[in-house]
Amino acid sequence: MMITVTYRIETTGSVEAMAAKIASDQSTGTFVPVPGETEELKARVAARVIAIRHLPDAEYPTWPEVAPGSGPIHRADADIAFPMDAIGTDLSALMTIAIGGVFSIKGMTGIRIVDMKLPEAFASAHPGPQFGLPGSRRLTGVEGRPIIGTIVKPALGLRPHETAELVGELIESGVDFIKDDEKLMSPAYSPLKERVEAIMPKILDHEQKTGKKVMYAFGISHADPDEMMRNHDLVLKAGGNCAVVNINSIGFGGMSFLRKRSGLVLHAHRNGWDILTRDPGAGLDFKVYQQFWRLLGVDQFQINGIRIKYWEPDESFVESFKAVSTPLFSKADCPLPVAGSGQWGGQAPDTYNRTGRTTDLLYLCGGGIVSHPGGPAAGVRAVQQAWQAAVADIPLDEYAKDHPELAASIAKFGDGKAA
Amino acid sequence: MMITVTYRIETTGSVEAMAAKIASDQSTGTFVPVPGETEELKARVAARVIAIRHLPDAEYPTWPEVAPGSGPIHRADADIAFPMDAIGTDLSALMTIAIGGVFSIKGMTGIRIVDMKLPEAFASAHPGPQFGLPGSRRLTGVEGRPIIGTIVKPALGLRPHETAELVGELIESGVDFIKDDEKLMSPAYSPLKERVEAIMPKILDHEQKTGKKVMYAFGISHADPDEMMRNHDLVLKAGGNCAVVNINSIGFGGMSFLRKRSGLVLHAHRNGWDILTRDPGAGLDFKVYQQFWRLLGVDQFQINGIRIKYWEPDESFVESFKAVSTPLFSKADCPLPVAGSGQWGGQAPDTYNRTGRTTDLLYLCGGGIVSHPGGPAAGVRAVQQAWQAAVADIPLDEYAKDHPELAASIAKFGDGKAA
Repeated sequence: MMITVTYRIETTGSVEAMAAKIASDQSTGTFVPVPGETEELKARVAARVIAIRHLPDAEYPTWPEVAPGSGPIHRADADIAFPMDAIGTDLSALMTIAIGGVFSIKGMTGIRIVDMKLPEAFASAHPGPQFGLPGSRRLTGVEGRPIIGTIVKPALGLRPHETAELVGELIESGVDFIKDDEKLMSPAYSPLKERVEAIMPKILDHEQKTGKKVMYAFGISHADPDEMMRNHDLVLKAGGNCAVVNINSIGFGGMSFLRKRSGLVLHAHRNGWDILTRDPGAGLDFKVYQQFWRLLGVDQFQINGIRIKYWEPDESFVESFKAVSTPLFSKADCPLPVAGSGQWGGQAPDTYNRTGRTTDLLYLCGGGIVSHPGGPAAGVRAVQQAWQAAVADIPLDEYAKDHPELAASIAKFGDGKAA
Repeated sequence: MMITVTYRIETTGSVEAMAAKIASDQSTGTFVPVPGETEELKARVAARVIAIRHLPDAEYPTWPEVAPGSGPIHRADADIAFPMDAIGTDLSALMTIAIGGVFSIKGMTGIRIVDMKLPEAFASAHPGPQFGLPGSRRLTGVEGRPIIGTIVKPALGLRPHETAELVGELIESGVDFIKDDEKLMSPAYSPLKERVEAIMPKILDHEQKTGKKVMYAFGISHADPDEMMRNHDLVLKAGGNCAVVNINSIGFGGMSFLRKRSGLVLHAHRNGWDILTRDPGAGLDFKVYQQFWRLLGVDQFQINGIRIKYWEPDESFVESFKAVSTPLFSKADCPLPVAGSGQWGGQAPDTYNRTGRTTDLLYLCGGGIVSHPGGPAAGVRAVQQAWQAAVADIPLDEYAKDHPELAASIAKFGDGKAA
């Protein structure tokens, strides 16, 4: 039973030597030979390089620690295996030993963790998602199509009664899911308690009238897990069923604490993740990063989308979608993928076709619904129509001919600039 | 009352436009104008660009999103002020709004947060260090010189009784502080409980005999705060007084939870931090990063040292030392700086002279003590002698003439390759 991690190494020196150094530094290595460092103990905990696959040289160094053009910059993927006995199943140990430490090593101009394979022991050691896809479908009552979500706009600055007023309109629009912007937690102008008190009666009234309970994700993140649990309890007691958590800003500790005690669907926003991945030569692939948060119990995972307003290329989103939809150990550990950022119906066909033609996702449109010329209800219908067209392989322009809401959204957002 | 954050922006476009975009995106901004976004609410929560200082153009982009040579890459520092009402004092909100979100913005080839000024409200909202410098001095009984620490070597792979045997020798050496390697938490070959049971009797026996209690920092990190508290309690109940915490691997939630309940000196290892700072054009300066962890309550902060075995330049260590030694609000919020990595007596003069000629630090030597030719006791004496020489402005070589332990360490480690 081994943990296998793949490092994309970039160095002007020898990639073999660098791989060996990683294996040594992260397990038994010391620079000065000392008494007691026996072969036996090395065998017990030593990490070992099991494969090296050379890649084309880099033209420019990822980190400017050598001058461009001063010599070849070698690249290779190195698989290193760590014995389970040396790390165990604790995710802080895994992060510290297999990932955190390698970025400080001298003599590299970049290093990126591109894959990680965990043995079965991790499955039983961690809770994984409590709700995931089936729970999200059950609680929203949406089957056979994507769950359609939106965000209150403007995302920030509204007082609770102003937010609630807009939420009232959105509920009436037929949308399945509404969320706070990830930057909205409990600021002075909109304390969470007041926001919950203003919004939840509208959700519950609508449920009583129509049988449809809109899932509202409240921003409950707090650096202090005790405070975050108080936020969680406010939402749960008021009849809410979902929360936005800024996973990087609460850390493994916050997420682990919350998941063990949670009665809410946990909608993960990975705000800040970009600094760990934007430079292709450093950091870590989402494929690696997401494993930690899935084991910790994220139910819904925001992973951007097609033609978004941020830096991330479409191909990267497609890879992320595939990553979260691929079981680590079983289907139960897959969170619901959430496509968002600048989305409207226009991206439905590409989203559908590039992610394995599935409708198992939460499709999150902010301005794409809220700013529809016919109002939010028309916005929701337009998005649903776009997905119907995508699934039926009918071009949007054609489907729009007898679907006026879709036609109106194409007219407004057709340049892809919805938000 | 504003929070002011300084962003070092790198873009082929206009830095002014990019600064305005950051201020807008992180507060009231949306891309599609929507009803309700009034001037009044903008005034309540809007972030504002308050200064822009242009810097020389970059030759190469930090992120390879434009081809080198394809046009000028502008750089500038932009100060942006956030109203306290929009963020509040929660550190997860501060991280999410002022830092996390900016790395995803399109149209930049790099962004680095280089300064952050928090208003007084943060002082009372967070515990800060429980022990810090005064507590570390009181518990070790060391005054008037650096606290001298070491690490058990080999750092990993030893069983508890093997570790305890080496610790016994180190205790006798006269060292003030001993720590687990940050990668040693509770692996199968050395469960924390057994390690504590094997080591603490030796510490307590020595205290009873000599009155000197060596501070031993046990690795208690765990992604689950409940488990981490159990680890904490094991150490505390056995009479221990210190713990190594891998702050990035437990996150704000883990640290916050632990600090509120802790009876131990919390020795922070920032393992993984390098990926946030190694590229000078992206991420964040330690000066910014450390503010979060100090407010959360780190007592001792590892910040590398002079001529270390990792990538970090000496100047960066010097800046880090200055950062942790400068009060955020009062001296009580300063942790004890910990200089480590490849240290032996040889770096004492530069460490002393480049950090304001202070002896208020923990000076951590692994191989530099353990691998001294005369054994650990000679190693500790050699380090103490080096610091005596540094403080007295006597060159080490001269001081070594009548201090044989220092002379022996110069002979062995004189190339700076201790570990």
